[in-house]
Amino acid sequence: MSASAIPLYAQIEDALVARITSVLHPGDRLPTEDQLIDEFGVSRITVRRAVQNLVARGLVVTRPGRGAFVTAPKLRQPLTELTGFVEDMEAHGLAATARVLRAEEITAPPEVCTALELPAGSTVMLIERVRLANGTPISFDRTHLPLELGRRVAEEDLANEPIFDVLEQRLATPLREASYALQAVAADAGVAELLEMRAGDAVFRIERTSYTDGGRPVDHEVLHYRGETITFTTRLPRRPTSPDAAR
Amino acid sequence: MSASAIPLYAQIEDALVARITSVLHPGDRLPTEDQLIDEFGVSRITVRRAVQNLVARGLVVTRPGRGAFVTAPKLRQPLTELTGFVEDMEAHGLAATARVLRAEEITAPPEVCTALELPAGSTVMLIERVRLANGTPISFDRTHLPLELGRRVAEEDLANEPIFDVLEQRLATPLREASYALQAVAADAGVAELLEMRAGDAVFRIERTSYTDGGRPVDHEVLHYRGETITFTTRLPRRPTSPDAAR
Repeated sequence: MSASAIPLYAQIEDALVARITSVLHPGDRLPTEDQLIDEFGVSRITVRRAVQNLVARGLVVTRPGRGAFVTAPKLRQPLTELTGFVEDMEAHGLAATARVLRAEEITAPPEVCTALELPAGSTVMLIERVRLANGTPISFDRTHLPLELGRRVAEEDLANEPIFDVLEQRLATPLREASYALQAVAADAGVAELLEMRAGDAVFRIERTSYTDGGRPVDHEVLHYRGETITFTTRLPRRPTSPDAAR
Repeated sequence: MSASAIPLYAQIEDALVARITSVLHPGDRLPTEDQLIDEFGVSRITVRRAVQNLVARGLVVTRPGRGAFVTAPKLRQPLTELTGFVEDMEAHGLAATARVLRAEEITAPPEVCTALELPAGSTVMLIERVRLANGTPISFDRTHLPLELGRRVAEEDLANEPIFDVLEQRLATPLREASYALQAVAADAGVAELLEMRAGDAVFRIERTSYTDGGRPVDHEVLHYRGETITFTTRLPRRPTSPDAAR
């Protein structure tokens, strides 16, 4: 390895993360310790430290006598501020990509009109994407946008660019906050196929409406996360109950 | 009906809620309009308004030509502050009860020791309850308490008194905040039987650790909610992204 301010084990760790997030898939075996020692020209202790860090990050599991294997992503995702999928995955050191299935104008169902504060029967842009982390499908998203905004969003390269970035950076539509509705539901056959689950498996379903300045709703999404993949975390205060504390 | 400051329709609405939360069960039919007119001695319009309000509250559905039926509870529960099950159900006008399945001292599994900041292998009090709203099982809760506190909690009438009330009002242990981990998982056979679901059905699983003064953890729960029953809602701000806003 070349001389660098970055410790050797961290350089190897980074190289392995790059491999995990590109050519390797969940279940694939990492090269053996001996292969890594040869490949990187470092000591066994350095290789072990790199692999142990990958285990600690949840990217790899080791099985005694069999080697180290790429895990299906297990994500702990703070639910404390409005963030997009790419931001979330990057915070985990995972490569986020998207497959765009559909981007078309539809007559919005009533609940979408309500969420976007549009007249009943309005036309909106519907964008359907499967979101992947390290090549594994994590989420199926149905995004509804008001028509004018949605047409401009749909012109962008949505396989590579997050809709939040398009809205905020290209279309001068800063997001300020979002309302969330969280449910555990059964995957229907379509969602199950897209997320490589069985129909009926548990899905973490999030309905999210994002608002720009002035409390104007600009983006209504229904997100379906593979149930076994993701844990959302938050921290909530107790409401003051004593007369003193409540004052 | 007797003279009162409360409008007639609201008195009938209240009387029907009391019936729904005691003797009636999900799927049961309400008395017909004619029966209610007879029973309460009021006009059809008054009866209709009372029933419409029950529909709006999600307690009843009407089926044309067949009557009005008690629904399985559908709850929208804010996830914005630390609240207990009884508080939550009362906010919906539902009667909350509990079946205590078990209250015994166990060797805490590692994740419980970590959550409660106890040494590995500590003994804790485990309390298992099924929580019901209007007689329908909504949630199966496994509560872990540090031993001394747990022994005092276990002496109380937990079928009728919430653990949060016992901690705060009897045991001088005010709750200040809680950490939450949220998942969608498949019901195992035991949970499914307790919640009257099928094994594999979606469960909204919450791990919650509640803290008293000084950030001391005093209560670690694993809550299993019937997936189709409950929607949790919250509202989150966007992190400021521009250099100006972030300052």
